[in-house]
Amino acid sequence: MSQYDVLCIGNAIVDIIAQCDEAFLETNGIVKGAMNLVDSRRAELLYSRMGPAVETSGGSAGNTAAGVASFGGRAAYFGKVSKDHLGGIYAHDIRAQGVAFDTRPLEGQPPTARSMIFVTPDGERSMNTYLGACTELGPEDVEPEKVKAATLTYFEGYLWDPPRAKEAIRQAALIAHQAGREVSMTLSDPFCVDRYRDEFLELMRSGTVDIVFANSDELKSLYQTASFDEALAAIRKDCRLAAVTRSEKGSVIVHGDETVVVEAAPIRELVDTTGAGDLYAAAFF
Amino acid sequence: MSQYDVLCIGNAIVDIIAQCDEAFLETNGIVKGAMNLVDSRRAELLYSRMGPAVETSGGSAGNTAAGVASFGGRAAYFGKVSKDHLGGIYAHDIRAQGVAFDTRPLEGQPPTARSMIFVTPDGERSMNTYLGACTELGPEDVEPEKVKAATLTYFEGYLWDPPRAKEAIRQAALIAHQAGREVSMTLSDPFCVDRYRDEFLELMRSGTVDIVFANSDELKSLYQTASFDEALAAIRKDCRLAAVTRSEKGSVIVHGDETVVVEAAPIRELVDTTGAGDLYAAAFF
Repeated sequence: MSQYDVLCIGNAIVDIIAQCDEAFLETNGIVKGAMNLVDSRRAELLYSRMGPAVETSGGSAGNTAAGVASFGGRAAYFGKVSKDHLGGIYAHDIRAQGVAFDTRPLEGQPPTARSMIFVTPDGERSMNTYLGACTELGPEDVEPEKVKAATLTYFEGYLWDPPRAKEAIRQAALIAHQAGREVSMTLSDPFCVDRYRDEFLELMRSGTVDIVFANSDELKSLYQTASFDEALAAIRKDCRLAAVTRSEKGSVIVHGDETVVVEAAPIRELVDTTGAGDLYAAAFF
Repeated sequence: MSQYDVLCIGNAIVDIIAQCDEAFLETNGIVKGAMNLVDSRRAELLYSRMGPAVETSGGSAGNTAAGVASFGGRAAYFGKVSKDHLGGIYAHDIRAQGVAFDTRPLEGQPPTARSMIFVTPDGERSMNTYLGACTELGPEDVEPEKVKAATLTYFEGYLWDPPRAKEAIRQAALIAHQAGREVSMTLSDPFCVDRYRDEFLELMRSGTVDIVFANSDELKSLYQTASFDEALAAIRKDCRLAAVTRSEKGSVIVHGDETVVVEAAPIRELVDTTGAGDLYAAAFF
């Protein structure tokens, strides 16, 4: 018996979303399609150049938790916001979605994280994330009862960017496994994989992580190969189960020698890919 | 020669938008389709019951100013925000749209105004507005040079809700007319008309306002009649020009004895009427 289907752990971020043209990314040196980390000064500079925007709660694993809840699942979330206006918005939105969220907010600085997301006419999103309060997430934020009560604990690779979240993850994974639960992660972003390749492989090979979500670029980045098939063969050996998304080509799930191919449902027009992978994971659960 | 096509004056409000079902409006005593004024306690209560939301800058005349700018016009705006997070979002968004906005923000309390907008499955929006800093807009916020430099000064009837904005409007109208410019208003909402009927009629009959925007409900409320034709005949005599929107029936423009009927463009599905009237005015200019 479990109280939650999924416990998600991630960077708690409010998205600030605006349209831009391709030239804007070029001019401002934003890597297209990626999650670009920015400090507070660059965050201010980019905001001053950003068009009129819409604010909405985001964060990869937070989106997944909200998705699980919206599909009727029972979800919980750990993530750090500050006691400020954006933090209040974040807490409201995720709880209003039906997700159990009780991480103690940070008193004082830094402020709640925000990501300026520029959506180009092709529907691709390029993120510029100021981590703010997320840098304070640590093992003290792991609520053991929630970990034990969740069938699966799921976290985002992005958590290797802030300094102490990885300690929280290792602790949560230990508690989960001791309770007979499983642990899952998303590789998050090819550049994130590039920053933490060895640590991610160690998480998988040590059995800290049982199930891995990735898109094809992240998978190829993990194994530093241009061959999707080669990367897929490699990940079969490194984790119990892997689910790899391939945009319009659908997804592939590998589990030991087994392979399941899922076709993508055709869509009329691609508007915005923001959160696509996060919701794939939510639907998978 | 003019520097601005339109100067808009209104309540500077950040919209907090969420979906809800019909029962939610009923349970919470929200008048459907209307702008419901709420105090800070009721604002907190409704927010605690609201689903996950999206934040975006709004306010009737602010939307119109942004619309004018997006259609390539030159717009300016007067409206009061506070020096807080939402106020920063508001100022960013309207300036990023290309609107000249320099109203001095309020230091300290009350906070920037927000409106919780519930959108029902039929696409109708029901607003719950906490006026906050808007209550501090006054004649000291009228920038005479901008009024003189604008072909048209346009304001929202909603400005009769805060205590001192009407003084600002009367002053702006005087400056505009002295500079040979025109003054326009929107009746905003049938309930707003009901609150300030005599004052609105006096604004029109005294020539303080030259051009009036209204929808058919507001127009009928103004003349306390169930007959659209009767109300239309009445407004011909009370202002130089009136533009009346009729949802799917398009709009009617009357100017003395002249009448222009504009058919509505057919749409496939009504998603959300939020801001529809505001953008009608923007397109008209």
